[in-house]
Amino acid sequence: MISYEQLSRPELEAEYAVQKARFESFKERGLKLNIARGIPSTEQLELSMDMLDVCRDRADYIAEGTDTRCYGLVDGIPAAKRFFSEILGVSPESVIVGGNSSLNMMYDMMIRTKVFGIGGCEPWCRQPGKLKWICIVPGYDRHFAVSEEMGFELVPVKMLETGPDVDAIEELVKDPTVKGMWCIPKHSNPCGTTYTPETVKRLASLKPAAADFRIYWDNAYCVHDIYDDCMELVPIQPLAEAAGNPNMVIQFMSTSKMGFPGAGVACLSAGPEDVKAIRARIAIQTIGPDKMNMLRHIRYFKDLQGLKDHMKLHAELIRPKFETVLNVLDKEAGELSFVRWTRPRGGYFISLWVMPGTAKRTVELAAEGGVVLTPAGSTWPLKFDPEDSNIRIAPTKPGVEEITLAAELLGISLKLAALEKLLNR
Amino acid sequence: MISYEQLSRPELEAEYAVQKARFESFKERGLKLNIARGIPSTEQLELSMDMLDVCRDRADYIAEGTDTRCYGLVDGIPAAKRFFSEILGVSPESVIVGGNSSLNMMYDMMIRTKVFGIGGCEPWCRQPGKLKWICIVPGYDRHFAVSEEMGFELVPVKMLETGPDVDAIEELVKDPTVKGMWCIPKHSNPCGTTYTPETVKRLASLKPAAADFRIYWDNAYCVHDIYDDCMELVPIQPLAEAAGNPNMVIQFMSTSKMGFPGAGVACLSAGPEDVKAIRARIAIQTIGPDKMNMLRHIRYFKDLQGLKDHMKLHAELIRPKFETVLNVLDKEAGELSFVRWTRPRGGYFISLWVMPGTAKRTVELAAEGGVVLTPAGSTWPLKFDPEDSNIRIAPTKPGVEEITLAAELLGISLKLAALEKLLNR
Repeated sequence: MISYEQLSRPELEAEYAVQKARFESFKERGLKLNIARGIPSTEQLELSMDMLDVCRDRADYIAEGTDTRCYGLVDGIPAAKRFFSEILGVSPESVIVGGNSSLNMMYDMMIRTKVFGIGGCEPWCRQPGKLKWICIVPGYDRHFAVSEEMGFELVPVKMLETGPDVDAIEELVKDPTVKGMWCIPKHSNPCGTTYTPETVKRLASLKPAAADFRIYWDNAYCVHDIYDDCMELVPIQPLAEAAGNPNMVIQFMSTSKMGFPGAGVACLSAGPEDVKAIRARIAIQTIGPDKMNMLRHIRYFKDLQGLKDHMKLHAELIRPKFETVLNVLDKEAGELSFVRWTRPRGGYFISLWVMPGTAKRTVELAAEGGVVLTPAGSTWPLKFDPEDSNIRIAPTKPGVEEITLAAELLGISLKLAALEKLLNR
Repeated sequence: MISYEQLSRPELEAEYAVQKARFESFKERGLKLNIARGIPSTEQLELSMDMLDVCRDRADYIAEGTDTRCYGLVDGIPAAKRFFSEILGVSPESVIVGGNSSLNMMYDMMIRTKVFGIGGCEPWCRQPGKLKWICIVPGYDRHFAVSEEMGFELVPVKMLETGPDVDAIEELVKDPTVKGMWCIPKHSNPCGTTYTPETVKRLASLKPAAADFRIYWDNAYCVHDIYDDCMELVPIQPLAEAAGNPNMVIQFMSTSKMGFPGAGVACLSAGPEDVKAIRARIAIQTIGPDKMNMLRHIRYFKDLQGLKDHMKLHAELIRPKFETVLNVLDKEAGELSFVRWTRPRGGYFISLWVMPGTAKRTVELAAEGGVVLTPAGSTWPLKFDPEDSNIRIAPTKPGVEEITLAAELLGISLKLAALEKLLNR
C-alpha cells in the first residue's frame, strides 16, 4: 500500500508531475462523459419495449371487470396490488398503487402528515419546535431534499457494512421530535449495502417515543441484483407487526428501473390504520392513477418470478459496467491507503471515499477533464459532507468504453487532488 | 303551466295516484341505471384507441432529442407545453404538464400553498384565523371536497346565466382572509354555463385584498362543445395581465374526457412568478411525469384543431343523450311551474331544480325505482344545498334507451316528491 503521507516532498512532486501530465493529455481529448445519475442505458430501455404491445384493444384493457381506460379505483387495480404485495412481502390490502413516481408518493406522504398528521397525532406543522428526521449517510440526495423541504432538521447516521448504525438510531428515537427516517434497504444508494436480517429485525423493533415516527422504507432496488448470489432482504413488515409496530413502516417502490424510468408504476404499502387513513386522503386528491399503464406493466412482468427473470437481462447489461469501474479503480488506486470504494452486488452505484478534504476538488478536476460526477457532498444532508470525502459513481448509462475512460480520469483526479492537498499543506 | 300549489287536495290526490302507479310499474321492472357521474361511454373510449399505436418503437419515443422513456423534464416535454398553451391561450413557458389528473394538480397546488405560501405571503397554515374559499353554486363536489380538506370555510356564490355573480365576488375579495375561488369557466359543472366575456374580464380585474388570492380556473370542458354554435371562452390570462394581476389566475385542464379518463395528461398554467415557484417545488416532489403517455397524446391530437376535430366525434355520441333527457323532461315536467333545468351546449351535465325541499326525496325515489343519481346536495359545499332543490344529471355513460327510462323515472320521482310534500303540509 502506498501512503502519500509518507512520501517525501520530491517524491510527491514527481508523482504530481506524472499524474498532471496524464490529466492534461485527457483534457486535450475534449471528452464529454457523465457518470452522475443512476439512469438506465438505452439498451436497458429497449428490454421492455414489448410491454407496449401487451394491451392492444378494448378487451385487453379490461381487468377483472374494470375498464382501466375509465375513471376509478383510487388505489390501483387489484392485479397491481397483488403484484406489488408479493414483491414487498405484504398483503394486497396494504398496497396503494399510484402514478409513475415513488418519490412523489414519499413526498405526498410527508406533506400529508405535515398537514393532517398520522397515528392520531397532531399534524407536524402544528407540533412545536424543530422536528428531526434521520438520514443514513452516505445516502440519496433526493430523499434528503424532500425532508429538507418539509422543514426537518436532518440527523445523519452512519451506514455500516450491515446497514445503518442501529445503536445510534435506537438512541435517537427516544427523542419524541424524531419523526422518521429514510432507508434504502437493498443495494442502498450510494453504498450498495443490503441490510442484514439482524439490522432489519432491530429496525422493525424500534421503540420510538413519537407515535407518528415512521420508517420510509424505499425498496427502490428490490430486484436489482447484478449477481446471482445476493443476500435476500428480509421483509420488514411481518417483523414490525410481531414487534408491536404494525404502522411504523411505510414501504415504497416503483418499476422505474425495471421498465421505463419516465413511465413506470409506483406504490406504497402501509400498516392497517395508516393505509386506511392514506386511502381516504388520496380519494380527495385524485379520482385515480393511470390504470392502463398499470395493467400493461402487470401483464408484461406477470409476477415476482417474471420480474426477476426480466431483471436478469438488466443485470447482464449493468454488470460489465460495474466491473469496469472496479477494475480501473483497482489499477489506478488499489495501492493507495487513503482511497476505498464499495463492491456492490446490485443497485446503481459505487460509493468512493477519497482523501478527506479532497472530494470537491476531485469532482472539479474530473469535470475539467471531461467527466461529470454527482456533486461532492450530495450524499449528505444539505449537500454538506463534513469530511469532504464521499463521491457517488453511477456507471449504468454510458458504454463500457466511455466508463473505462471516465474511471481512469476519476483515478487520476483523486490522486491529483490528494497531491495538491499534501503539497500545499 | 301547471302549479301544483294551486291544485285542490282531491286534484293532488288524483295526480299522486297516477304518478304512484307509474312509479310502481317502473319499480317492477327492476332497472339498474346510473346517471350519477360524468363518465364517458365505452363508445367514447373507443374513439381514442388509435392513440395507443402512434408510438411504436424507440424512434417514436424520442421527442425533440429527449428519450421520453427515461427520467427528466420535470414540467413536461416541450411539445406538450406548446399543445396545452395553445388551448389555454397562454405562453408555453407558463405551462407545467403533470400526470393523469388535473384534480391532483389542483390539490397539490393548494396543499403546497398551505405549507409553503405563494406570492411572498406566509403559508396558509401559519396565517391566523379561519381562511375562506369562494365556491360557485351549484358547483363541482370534488372541488369543494379539496378546499374542505384544506380547512377552508367555503363561501357559496350563485351561478348566474352569465357566469358567477361577480358583484358578490368583488365584495368578498375585499376580505383578506378570502384566498381563492373555484371556477369551471366553460360548460360549467353542473350548470353548463360558459362565462361571458364581460364576466371573464371582471374576474380578471378583481382587486383582492390578499396577495395570495388565486382563481383556480379549471378549464375541464374547454373543447367539450356538443353544438357548433357555442360561445367561445375568452382567455383570461391576457386580461389578468392587462389588469395588473399576472399571477392571480392558475389554469388547470386535462385530456381525461378527450382520450382516456383513467390515463390522460393534465397540466396547469400560472403567472410568471408563480410558475417559477411551482416548478421549483415540483422538482423536489418528483423526477418528472409520464412523458411517454404525454408524447402519445400529443402525437395523436397534434394541436388545437386536431383536438377540436376529435371532440366532434365525442359530440356526436353525447348530443343525442343530452337531447333525450331534455325531451323527456319537457314531456314529463315542461308544464310544471316549480321545475326548471339547464339546456347546456356542451360539457357533461344537466342541472335540474326541483321543488325546494324535495331534491333529496326525489333522488331517494329514483334510487328506489332503479336509477342512481348524484346525491342531492352534492353540488353545494359540505354537500348541503340549503334549498334542497338542485340535482345533477350526468347522461353520457348509458345508452339512449336507458337514458330515456332514467329520465322518465326522474320526472315521475320529482313529481311524486313534490306531491308528497304538498299532501303532507
